[in-house]
Amino acid sequence: MNHLTRRELLGLVAGGVAWARPAQAQKRRLNFVFLLVDDLGWADTGVYGADLHETPNIDRLARESMKFTQAYAAAPVCTPTRASIMTGKYPARLGMTIWHEASANPPQNRKVIPPVVRGSLPHEEVTIAEVLHEAGYLTAHVGKWHLGTAGYYPETQGFDINIGGTFWGAPQTFFYPYRGTKHFGGEPRYVPHLEWGKPGEYLTDRLTDEVVRIVEKAGERPFFLHLGYHTVHTPIEGKPELVERYRKKLRPGLRHQNAAYAAMVHSLDESVGRILGALQQRGIADNTVVIFTSDNGGYINEFDKQTVTSNSPLRSGKGSLYEGGVRVPLLVKWPGVTQAGSICEEPVASIDFYPTMLEMAGLRGDARHNAEVDGISLLPVLQNPKGRLSREEIYFHYPHYYATTTPVSAVRARDWKLLEYHEDNRVELYNLASDLAEAHDLASKAPQKAKELREKLDGWRRSIKAQMPAPNPKYPGAR
Amino acid sequence: MNHLTRRELLGLVAGGVAWARPAQAQKRRLNFVFLLVDDLGWADTGVYGADLHETPNIDRLARESMKFTQAYAAAPVCTPTRASIMTGKYPARLGMTIWHEASANPPQNRKVIPPVVRGSLPHEEVTIAEVLHEAGYLTAHVGKWHLGTAGYYPETQGFDINIGGTFWGAPQTFFYPYRGTKHFGGEPRYVPHLEWGKPGEYLTDRLTDEVVRIVEKAGERPFFLHLGYHTVHTPIEGKPELVERYRKKLRPGLRHQNAAYAAMVHSLDESVGRILGALQQRGIADNTVVIFTSDNGGYINEFDKQTVTSNSPLRSGKGSLYEGGVRVPLLVKWPGVTQAGSICEEPVASIDFYPTMLEMAGLRGDARHNAEVDGISLLPVLQNPKGRLSREEIYFHYPHYYATTTPVSAVRARDWKLLEYHEDNRVELYNLASDLAEAHDLASKAPQKAKELREKLDGWRRSIKAQMPAPNPKYPGAR
Repeated sequence: MNHLTRRELLGLVAGGVAWARPAQAQKRRLNFVFLLVDDLGWADTGVYGADLHETPNIDRLARESMKFTQAYAAAPVCTPTRASIMTGKYPARLGMTIWHEASANPPQNRKVIPPVVRGSLPHEEVTIAEVLHEAGYLTAHVGKWHLGTAGYYPETQGFDINIGGTFWGAPQTFFYPYRGTKHFGGEPRYVPHLEWGKPGEYLTDRLTDEVVRIVEKAGERPFFLHLGYHTVHTPIEGKPELVERYRKKLRPGLRHQNAAYAAMVHSLDESVGRILGALQQRGIADNTVVIFTSDNGGYINEFDKQTVTSNSPLRSGKGSLYEGGVRVPLLVKWPGVTQAGSICEEPVASIDFYPTMLEMAGLRGDARHNAEVDGISLLPVLQNPKGRLSREEIYFHYPHYYATTTPVSAVRARDWKLLEYHEDNRVELYNLASDLAEAHDLASKAPQKAKELREKLDGWRRSIKAQMPAPNPKYPGAR
Repeated sequence: MNHLTRRELLGLVAGGVAWARPAQAQKRRLNFVFLLVDDLGWADTGVYGADLHETPNIDRLARESMKFTQAYAAAPVCTPTRASIMTGKYPARLGMTIWHEASANPPQNRKVIPPVVRGSLPHEEVTIAEVLHEAGYLTAHVGKWHLGTAGYYPETQGFDINIGGTFWGAPQTFFYPYRGTKHFGGEPRYVPHLEWGKPGEYLTDRLTDEVVRIVEKAGERPFFLHLGYHTVHTPIEGKPELVERYRKKLRPGLRHQNAAYAAMVHSLDESVGRILGALQQRGIADNTVVIFTSDNGGYINEFDKQTVTSNSPLRSGKGSLYEGGVRVPLLVKWPGVTQAGSICEEPVASIDFYPTMLEMAGLRGDARHNAEVDGISLLPVLQNPKGRLSREEIYFHYPHYYATTTPVSAVRARDWKLLEYHEDNRVELYNLASDLAEAHDLASKAPQKAKELREKLDGWRRSIKAQMPAPNPKYPGAR
């Protein structure tokens, strides 16, 4: 067996003298590589059925991992999901339900007025980085952060290293020097810490250079790498030679039709290959957990007059609580535990990573971690792809607008899913086992199920003090 | 002569083909090292009369430079002076008259209520870095920035490189890993970009490592290094061996009595030596301008129950518009132009660096730089220490409170100086030629001069739309 047993790990962490282990054992504490891709859709990689995109390295990782078919981001947009990963809590419990930049300025001209919510992760929250750091881990954040202003950057939340993390949700450009004012309303955005680059250098490649450097320099310390790859978020910019390659491959009938996006996915895949290679090179692949996932569903709107991606067969995309907005790819490779090439169909969510990683690291009983964690450890399924989790429901709350949605909450309960829209209190009910595309609303056909789930959803919102939108008295037709 | 003539420089910048020069000439464009020390008092270095502190490298720089005896920071605190250096404008014209953190929250319990002012340097301002960058310079900021939130960091204001610049005015600690929550109300501050350090590493040394690296990596590009050394600001933390060295040297009667502060000055001095050495090493010392100054007067309050420094013979210190708060050391080394060991007694101010550096770089006529610059080029005095500037007055406006002051404005007009306090509209008048210590208020003895200067001060404030404090109706005794 290539990894330490949980008992051994607990001993190393909690033990000190009494539990002293030989140096060899100390070296074998699990590393974590958490690879969070921005906006990567459920169907964007080969192993999840992409057609245009080529992802040989991700597909290889999948063959060495457990692949989850029903993994959820806790929110349909970036900041809330990222906050849930850091804390194991539902975004609505944290009061962080929309991306940072939009948190304080809800639109005042829609039918309901979304709440003003938190834009920075409070320091009182004990992040996964803080727990691992205190347990002796080297903790590094690379890439997108999006969890608050500069006083809330990764350095204040348990990370030894922050390369590139800011309050912004996306870079101005994916090409060196990674700054400018072209997109995002002319805002002069930049990616800090990458000053010594070469013209033409591509951000995804560069972040990977930095990641590889950390892997090489980490020495004997176990590490937690929290990798917020900016790709495949807008601006949709691929390396020219790759864009050209995919442009030639385009043909009618393919699910994906955006060559620049395909080029971005290609570069992401190369980076995955390089990171796995660096672990292999250092001889630590067999005690490094690799988690590969996305912060929300694929972006189905336009950029540069081209549709970005498609989440087909799922409905809708980023911003929506239909499956296309929240169901994401998830691969977990835990050498010696997860069965290579296994598939898990149990619904899991981004709130689960926190307790899962703590248990993997033997820190489950650690009093420092947050008391009110919403997620649950995935060990029962990681150890057995046919296992079941004890949880029956996964909840979502997005009381905001987006191109794909009006304010909405949802609950996934085994095969069923209910959505409740707050402009008109309408509910929709779907049976995902028979209707993955959410095409057939069963709310009127199964009113008892709808009522039951609505009550559960309402009870959950109350229990975590979820912020709700308010009626807009100035909206045309409002009384 | 080791530098290009101004005509040659103008040609290189403005010229293109018509003014084409051989490669050798192109290589000789002037570099700039702008070394801005935080809170360094007028009397803190050997060349300005320090007794406890030892500064052999700074003293050597002074022997190779022009030393100014009447140089002013444009403000008695950090952010405003720094803004004036970036733009050549008076802080009051920029609406930036107090440090970043205090800009939005004036106290409500004092006799007058200070104005809410700007905390971030507007992007519309054309900084010295932007002009030099557009002219082909490599522009680097290292250390303290303090000119705005993350959307206003050096990367957005013309700098290719930002190492360590944040919205904060001081680091948590001068020791690696440069973060913590001990000072500043428990705020989790950090210095970004310095993650690969060694325990015990000292911030001043580390910033210098980074500066030397930039000098070495700049290649053939001319460079502008804007070095915001955090030292000698609080927290007053010196390297232990140096603190011990100065502790042994303490004796009654010395002007300076703080061994930890002396150790900080010592480390600063070593850094100055290392930077000058790096320029020498690369063979570019003879075409590199070095400017050494401070952002305000020395801090005369306590830290860790010890008085930090003394500006004697000047009155008061940081925060005040008496000389101790705004008169600062200034050394300018312009190889081939400034006369080694020369002394200039002309009053100059931090608003002057912008037009001075532009003229040194041959960019004076450049339309990109700000139209409303308040400073004037110092070339007439740099070329001739006995020269005079055409300006008669230098103005100050600090409508805020500090440990050393209540809201106040001031004007320096040749030998005279008038201060106007806004709580009670009281004025004070000093003749600095005969009363450097500002001990003898001549306002009642020379009412005509007081009236004349008060009118000038008032006219200046109106012309730049200076923000004024307001009466506090809730203050005890207010009607």
